[in-house]
Amino acid sequence: MKIVSTIEEVRAQVKEWKKEGLSIGFVPTMGYLHEGHMSLIDAAGENDRVVVSIFVNPMQFGPTEDLASYPRDLKHDAKLCEEHDVDLIFHPTPEEMYGDQFYSYVDMDVLTKELCGLSRPVHFRGVCTVVTKLFNIVTPDRAYFGQKDAQQLAVIKRMVKDLNMPLTITGCPIIREEDGLAKSSRNTYLSPEERKAALVLSRSIFLGKEMVEKGERDCKKILASMTAEIEKEPLAKIDYVKIVDLDTMQQVEKIDRGILAAIAVYIGKTRLIDNFMYELEN
Amino acid sequence: MKIVSTIEEVRAQVKEWKKEGLSIGFVPTMGYLHEGHMSLIDAAGENDRVVVSIFVNPMQFGPTEDLASYPRDLKHDAKLCEEHDVDLIFHPTPEEMYGDQFYSYVDMDVLTKELCGLSRPVHFRGVCTVVTKLFNIVTPDRAYFGQKDAQQLAVIKRMVKDLNMPLTITGCPIIREEDGLAKSSRNTYLSPEERKAALVLSRSIFLGKEMVEKGERDCKKILASMTAEIEKEPLAKIDYVKIVDLDTMQQVEKIDRGILAAIAVYIGKTRLIDNFMYELEN
Repeated sequence: MKIVSTIEEVRAQVKEWKKEGLSIGFVPTMGYLHEGHMSLIDAAGENDRVVVSIFVNPMQFGPTEDLASYPRDLKHDAKLCEEHDVDLIFHPTPEEMYGDQFYSYVDMDVLTKELCGLSRPVHFRGVCTVVTKLFNIVTPDRAYFGQKDAQQLAVIKRMVKDLNMPLTITGCPIIREEDGLAKSSRNTYLSPEERKAALVLSRSIFLGKEMVEKGERDCKKILASMTAEIEKEPLAKIDYVKIVDLDTMQQVEKIDRGILAAIAVYIGKTRLIDNFMYELEN
Repeated sequence: MKIVSTIEEVRAQVKEWKKEGLSIGFVPTMGYLHEGHMSLIDAAGENDRVVVSIFVNPMQFGPTEDLASYPRDLKHDAKLCEEHDVDLIFHPTPEEMYGDQFYSYVDMDVLTKELCGLSRPVHFRGVCTVVTKLFNIVTPDRAYFGQKDAQQLAVIKRMVKDLNMPLTITGCPIIREEDGLAKSSRNTYLSPEERKAALVLSRSIFLGKEMVEKGERDCKKILASMTAEIEKEPLAKIDYVKIVDLDTMQQVEKIDRGILAAIAVYIGKTRLIDNFMYELEN
């Protein structure tokens, strides 16, 4: 496994692989890897070569968000990647990615205006821009994203479709701790007490999912139950609890199409997200 | 020469060429081709294969602009392309390019806020977005743009650099009629009387260029002379006359770096542009 920090080094390696006709799978991450990331890396193993990027992207953090404190541990990440047969880690500096003048951006209407886009107004512009850059640098055949960041996955899929990017996007299931908490690098912020309180997210998600699977189609009723569940927990503060159209991320009142039920909840100062998807069979 | 209208057909052809290791030159146009375009196509001849797109892109026209009346003549265009050894014309419909739901866009700060960006606020978003799409569809090694649209060229170069798009952008010199008027598909809008009046653009450009070449460095003086020249013509109405930094498109007061002197002038209802660049040797 190689670890490189310049765009030029990635390009040189990828060029070699392409000459040999090898396919490339790509997993973009912000590092501090956990089993969620590992499931993406393992899925990327369907390609001849696997590239992982580790880059805490300043452009997707708002001015009051946790850019500086976001956890980083390259040594730990490299060990995990090595164990999971990654071929190349790309670990650039912000300077390598953005230089001293940077004016361009990729963004999107509609899908980015709901859910996390409301409380994190610059977030998806930062995500779309850095992912476009990484796709252009790595030029993968397939890229892998977790369904835990469901809106991000929908936005990336839409971006790739709209802009005719020549690759395939694969979404991979949420990976959870044994007690239900969705794996996230941000879980590391939680105190033991908060860690216990954070279970309210998955409880709310499981409750909503069960209602839908049992046939409930009225979003108001489902959201009321999910909200009530979260409000039982004094350390929890709701950012949003919503059900949206799976393609457009616009709120729906009735489950008559594929939907995403998504929640964002502050546990103390830590903002966590969770979700479930439901697709109607017909 | 092949003429195709679907993205799939372009991809199939390009895939074949890439398998054979052939390089691809690309000239994106809105059609109604003239000698300006032909100079780009001839420059693209340095590649093994040449692709030309002909697409009047709705996204780069404002609501009051000339989208509907923009001149179109595919038969004439195809004949010219055939004569200039083009291998593939991509001539999609707006539906093929944008479908019925389209939310993504590529845009830029700073460079797009001056010059044409002021009077055409949605223009460069439309240009960046369609050019990104075309680059992703054609995946050329090199793409060719005219310096007649100097701000567009600067914006595209910046976009490719910022977003790490894996291709090279080449700018090609302005091609002029014998009497000096810069070639443009929009020249066809001009009545005989307006055609004569339109010479005021190149006269103003040549005058400014001569002043700079003779050593004048004060932009105010140069702009005053250029403006006065245009104002002699009763049919001309100035949109802008400006001197800007060649990289950032921000106005400068003194010529102490590479500059672009750019003008946009209405002749009757037709908006025409012209420019000259000047780079300091040192």
